[in-house]
Amino acid sequence: MSAAGGAMSADAMPGDGGAADSALQELRTLDGEARLLEHTAAVLNWDQETYMPEQAVEERAGQQALLQSLIHQRNTSDRVGELLESVRYRYGEDAPEGADTDGTHGRRNQDGGGANAAEEKREEISREEVNRAFVREKDRQYRQSTRIPARLVRELAETASRGQHAWAAARRADDYNQFKPWLEKLLNLSRETADVLGHDGNRYDALLDQYEPYARTDDVTAVFATLRAGLVDLVGRIGEAPQVDTSFLDNSFPADRQESISRRVMAALGYDANRGRLDRSAHPFTTTLGAHDVRITTRYDEKLVTSGLFSTIHETGHALYELGVAESLHGTILAEGTSLGIHESQSRMWENMIGRSREFWTCWLPDLGRTFPDQLQGVSLEAFYRGINRVEPSLIRVEADEVTYGLHVIMRFELEQALLAGDLTVDDLPGAWNEKSRTLLGVEPPDYAHGVLQDVHWSFGAFGYFPTYALGNLYAAQFLTVMEREMPDMWNAVAAGETGAILAWLRSNIHRYGKVRSAGTLVEEITGQPLDPSYFIDYLNRKYGEIYRI
Amino acid sequence: MSAAGGAMSADAMPGDGGAADSALQELRTLDGEARLLEHTAAVLNWDQETYMPEQAVEERAGQQALLQSLIHQRNTSDRVGELLESVRYRYGEDAPEGADTDGTHGRRNQDGGGANAAEEKREEISREEVNRAFVREKDRQYRQSTRIPARLVRELAETASRGQHAWAAARRADDYNQFKPWLEKLLNLSRETADVLGHDGNRYDALLDQYEPYARTDDVTAVFATLRAGLVDLVGRIGEAPQVDTSFLDNSFPADRQESISRRVMAALGYDANRGRLDRSAHPFTTTLGAHDVRITTRYDEKLVTSGLFSTIHETGHALYELGVAESLHGTILAEGTSLGIHESQSRMWENMIGRSREFWTCWLPDLGRTFPDQLQGVSLEAFYRGINRVEPSLIRVEADEVTYGLHVIMRFELEQALLAGDLTVDDLPGAWNEKSRTLLGVEPPDYAHGVLQDVHWSFGAFGYFPTYALGNLYAAQFLTVMEREMPDMWNAVAAGETGAILAWLRSNIHRYGKVRSAGTLVEEITGQPLDPSYFIDYLNRKYGEIYRI
Repeated sequence: MSAAGGAMSADAMPGDGGAADSALQELRTLDGEARLLEHTAAVLNWDQETYMPEQAVEERAGQQALLQSLIHQRNTSDRVGELLESVRYRYGEDAPEGADTDGTHGRRNQDGGGANAAEEKREEISREEVNRAFVREKDRQYRQSTRIPARLVRELAETASRGQHAWAAARRADDYNQFKPWLEKLLNLSRETADVLGHDGNRYDALLDQYEPYARTDDVTAVFATLRAGLVDLVGRIGEAPQVDTSFLDNSFPADRQESISRRVMAALGYDANRGRLDRSAHPFTTTLGAHDVRITTRYDEKLVTSGLFSTIHETGHALYELGVAESLHGTILAEGTSLGIHESQSRMWENMIGRSREFWTCWLPDLGRTFPDQLQGVSLEAFYRGINRVEPSLIRVEADEVTYGLHVIMRFELEQALLAGDLTVDDLPGAWNEKSRTLLGVEPPDYAHGVLQDVHWSFGAFGYFPTYALGNLYAAQFLTVMEREMPDMWNAVAAGETGAILAWLRSNIHRYGKVRSAGTLVEEITGQPLDPSYFIDYLNRKYGEIYRI
Repeated sequence: MSAAGGAMSADAMPGDGGAADSALQELRTLDGEARLLEHTAAVLNWDQETYMPEQAVEERAGQQALLQSLIHQRNTSDRVGELLESVRYRYGEDAPEGADTDGTHGRRNQDGGGANAAEEKREEISREEVNRAFVREKDRQYRQSTRIPARLVRELAETASRGQHAWAAARRADDYNQFKPWLEKLLNLSRETADVLGHDGNRYDALLDQYEPYARTDDVTAVFATLRAGLVDLVGRIGEAPQVDTSFLDNSFPADRQESISRRVMAALGYDANRGRLDRSAHPFTTTLGAHDVRITTRYDEKLVTSGLFSTIHETGHALYELGVAESLHGTILAEGTSLGIHESQSRMWENMIGRSREFWTCWLPDLGRTFPDQLQGVSLEAFYRGINRVEPSLIRVEADEVTYGLHVIMRFELEQALLAGDLTVDDLPGAWNEKSRTLLGVEPPDYAHGVLQDVHWSFGAFGYFPTYALGNLYAAQFLTVMEREMPDMWNAVAAGETGAILAWLRSNIHRYGKVRSAGTLVEEITGQPLDPSYFIDYLNRKYGEIYRI
């Protein structure tokens, strides 16, 4: 059954009857309506970012506000509270283990990469696990949505909207002072939000949890300490080696031809054109407009052939995740990526680990050469591979390479915690930013636009978001280790243009679960241990040790 | 104020306070929400017809159904009934005339074409007229929506959807029998709908009223009798004259270049690219996604250069109407075209009366020649003008010329009345169709696909829709007579590429009123008399008398 009916399929329904099950059914109907409205809101948003005429913007905001209030009603009504009460004893966290009707509860596919349709069917996610996850996520959503009072929701939305405008103006004018009062307001509202959401003394926990559910600041801090040391060491050694040549990329690459190869790559990676689209927008994004409608956008820089293509691969990674959620979860709160970190692990694995591998370009460089015969004539695979993996400390996070990227994130993670805790004032932020940039990256911004004002996130109050970017790399590297073990032929297949087994592995181990399993559970189930940054550091050392001959 | 707030602007609010006014305000809030949801549904629909990936179709239907039920709730709740009760004594049809605060109640601009911003402001539609129209239309909507029971709504929607599929399959297979049982069902449901909506003995009145509000079958019948005689006479005389040459149009015209001139024409006619878009779809349409977001689509036939361009002009006419509604009506039920007939008068005036005039091509033929230099080299204005106005009885309504078009409509008007009344059975329909085609047009379909199965309308139960197409031509010609009198320089301006005064006249006399004035009122107010088909017959005789030298 599709999501059209707005409720989970009968197959996923519990079989043991009773009041809890009829309450569960009603909860699913309300949840299904919220889901349809969320997808409707996504259509409005996609349209706004791609094709909407300029003067439609004000009414569109009204359409969105109405939809958001309808969604909010369906997630937070008293009836939802009552229903959650009725199902908690049966499916809640402290409930006794239920009947595990198919006997596969939680066990993951140990035989790995050879997943085919028959195996997938055999291993369907158990009803019990789905029902428990559904109640857990509805409960979490209900608690979070009802704890934030309407007054605070409104104030946050309004300040975020105005803050974003102020940030854009401040960045254009390179004037931090224009943005400062908004940053102060947004910090205060975020502290208030953290306090109503609840925490054990560290407000950052409550904010981080909005983007990386169930993650703890202390764990991230520990992981980032190891990551930081590893990155600083590697960047230092790379800095002493001769730089790779990228001069062959200094050319002009018409956008239409960039788009044509982007479309070929998307299709080859398994992105079904009947379930999505590629369009252009100011900032690349992926959005879910339906269980079978996940669209991406990109942008092309004619001076930089790799930018549009790698951003397409990145967004394709996000889209494949959303499209890979099990049918039985469609139309429910469980039918989406489980955390921003896991989402980012999918986009970054495809973009960097696969998309910037020598094997990938063994297959694709001939196509790129045919697409741009004048520009890329005579460029060897080795030269190309080294060129697209150039490492160099720079000022702008979104343009950073795979190695230095993590340092940009760590900087922001440390600064936003200090801001939130009151250990750093907004007055002192630009100085602290520049100091950290010097220490971690060895470069110092010449102005605010290339420094503290470069990112949009804080301007709409998204404190706690940044770490998910780096967590994505760490998850990806840890998953990759298992993939390589379970699919020894994986890289040869990539070189032959065959990534189907990789996608099948990701679907079977990650995608199909949607939000059923948290990020932490996925990592434990797949790799047998908690998140460990050494996999990523090892990966970088191997790859860049070879590229830079260090 | 924009529609974003979901309610009429404070300027349009009544000033006399009291219970009726607070009820009116609440009614407007509910109406404003319904309007935002309708526009949201239009975004979903536009996306579905243009860019949506194939597999999204099933969930999209679920999203649409949910929106429709939310809209229905807002239009038909008991609260709406109570509010209407409270405002009726003050603004209802039998209410005493209210305070006419700006003194302009209903008076139309007698000095015509020179409308400028200052004049338009002076002549703002009176609050009293707006409030009365608002209550009238909300009341009408409430009555119609509450009279049709939920069971019938569902059955109609389902049968329409399945009927449309059956029709498409029947047309492909050229097998009328596949469609026949659906037509029978749809006729029965339409009879039932007419009976619950209410009528004075003629069910067709109730159905026609859904598309051409406040129109009466008897009036349309009388008007069409005159029209029929005039058309048959003119078609007969044209048939005896030598046919015009169109051989220069037999060529190949690349779609991209057709699109480029379509965009130039749209812009020149005053369609603001910041308030709309042109895209491609299987069937051209216009849709309102917001008060400042009215989009059109077209399709290009590389063998027929005129088809895509005239369809663009046609849809531009519809879009200009919707975009011309007064700001004070935005976000309300009054902010749309008042009837399908008046809507069609706008599209057909721009497409045929202006777009197929000699003056229009005096201005545009040079551009078309530059766009297709190889294809149109040496084609004179006279040859082109006569070629695009070729009259010839043919089988397919949507491909018919301006003269024979009305006969296609009259045929359907007569047949659907006979079907509904039970004077004609679905078994006898194909024979009756062919007989009428022979009598009225002198041609007989060789198969069902070019005959009784050619139009989609009946397949979703739209009986009463067809006459609005021909009414559009009649309204347009009657308006044109006044325009030519009030703007004696009008055609010289068209030849110079200046259509701004025409648009200003249409805005001032028609567009800005939205649904405030019914079709009948508009015609009376603008032309000083009821609808009279002789204007259209005179127009055709003048134009085609010259082209065919008869």
